[in-house]
Amino acid sequence: MEKNRPIILVTNDDGIVSQGIRALVEVAAKFGEVYVVAPDKPQSAMGHAITISQPLRLSEVDIFGDKVSKAYECSGTPVDCVKLAVDKVLHRRPDLCLSGINHGSNAAINVIYSGTMSAAMEAAIEGINAIGFSFLNYSHHADLRACKYYAEKIIDNCLENGFPQSALLNVNIPDLPMEKIKGMKICHQANAKWEERFDERTDPQGRKYYWLTGNFIARDTHNDADWNSLHEGYVSIVPIQYDLTSYSDISLLKESWEDLSE
Amino acid sequence: MEKNRPIILVTNDDGIVSQGIRALVEVAAKFGEVYVVAPDKPQSAMGHAITISQPLRLSEVDIFGDKVSKAYECSGTPVDCVKLAVDKVLHRRPDLCLSGINHGSNAAINVIYSGTMSAAMEAAIEGINAIGFSFLNYSHHADLRACKYYAEKIIDNCLENGFPQSALLNVNIPDLPMEKIKGMKICHQANAKWEERFDERTDPQGRKYYWLTGNFIARDTHNDADWNSLHEGYVSIVPIQYDLTSYSDISLLKESWEDLSE
Repeated sequence: MEKNRPIILVTNDDGIVSQGIRALVEVAAKFGEVYVVAPDKPQSAMGHAITISQPLRLSEVDIFGDKVSKAYECSGTPVDCVKLAVDKVLHRRPDLCLSGINHGSNAAINVIYSGTMSAAMEAAIEGINAIGFSFLNYSHHADLRACKYYAEKIIDNCLENGFPQSALLNVNIPDLPMEKIKGMKICHQANAKWEERFDERTDPQGRKYYWLTGNFIARDTHNDADWNSLHEGYVSIVPIQYDLTSYSDISLLKESWEDLSE
Repeated sequence: MEKNRPIILVTNDDGIVSQGIRALVEVAAKFGEVYVVAPDKPQSAMGHAITISQPLRLSEVDIFGDKVSKAYECSGTPVDCVKLAVDKVLHRRPDLCLSGINHGSNAAINVIYSGTMSAAMEAAIEGINAIGFSFLNYSHHADLRACKYYAEKIIDNCLENGFPQSALLNVNIPDLPMEKIKGMKICHQANAKWEERFDERTDPQGRKYYWLTGNFIARDTHNDADWNSLHEGYVSIVPIQYDLTSYSDISLLKESWEDLSE
């Protein structure tokens, strides 16, 4: 490989054998030297979980051919993968971390539950520029050509024009044929929630158990909300930060609360 | 119980038998009718994980005596507990959700990894006013008197003066004798990170495994940062929101990126 190519860490939450990470590795290999550290099993909806009560395993795998310098499957969560990659695989911070391509949306409130985005956020916390990619199609046999096209454009744009201050982007790609996609849009996280509903069943021993299901409730009417832009046919790009402080509430609280000194 | 007392859901991430949740239940019982739905085992550092590949179990337990109306242990994550409580235990949204008291700090970047705070955040997403409490002492035999005193003051203040717009507070209590605590302070989330370091070991079969360890790196010099306020002897109170958009980066990206329409 030529010298001075960026070191790119690729991870995901669907597991190292998913089609989505394979597509992302192909794109990443056009830009730099690729290392993969990804979960050895599906880790969707793991949020920012880390493994503190179990030891972690790393095993080298050879499933990406000459697209990668090294690839490892890890027994932990997506966030564990990033931490282990920096400390035990690369022994340095990579120049870029790419997470995905997730099979399913991480727009709107999904960003909070997403293992894909939490891995990318962990990289950003460690000072690494990071992008999470998600596709609004849950099938593991989906056509990922539009995803690869836009992933390449976005990585290229970031390397050319610089990353946001927050160092982190949440990219979602609509489930449309490439020619139907209207382009890309810089968005904010749509205000939305999942309305929880559990499917109650009874096991052969007569004990109840519950499966999580739910309905997605969109509550944002702005055109620039990521959820809305996706439904209009745009690739949504949201700059993401991890300071959860509600600054507007700080002054409100200082005014309304008394006796703070007691 | 008297009529019209608020319905209060109590949960945590250390598990239903921890001392922290017992202390919080005692405080909550002074304000309303208490229901507990908490993990049946420790779920620290689970972040905003939800359980989608396994069914969940709920079992009624009788360990809080007459302090609670009902208490259940749940096989899932802290976020699962809140979702199940609303849909299958209360069949309505509670008036208030309290999470903790966590055995260990959730100040600064710890809020991202915290199961305690993710449970409270899940409640806020569902439109429920919520407070997460954490104590800067990891011992499960710690003296929780100062925690109970300040939890009561803060809940009282919220019910009297109203919740922040974001509906969510992250409260951390310093590990000091009550008379040494200087009071409460409205703070922002301190800029900080964990510097990952894995302890590498070899199992009896000769295979390597890794334990997550790390050093906390404080990077915030403001007096109003929660981490700094705690070290000065204050109880820190941070209003928290779950819109992760970095709004300042939106205009920057719109300016620097071209060809968005392609």
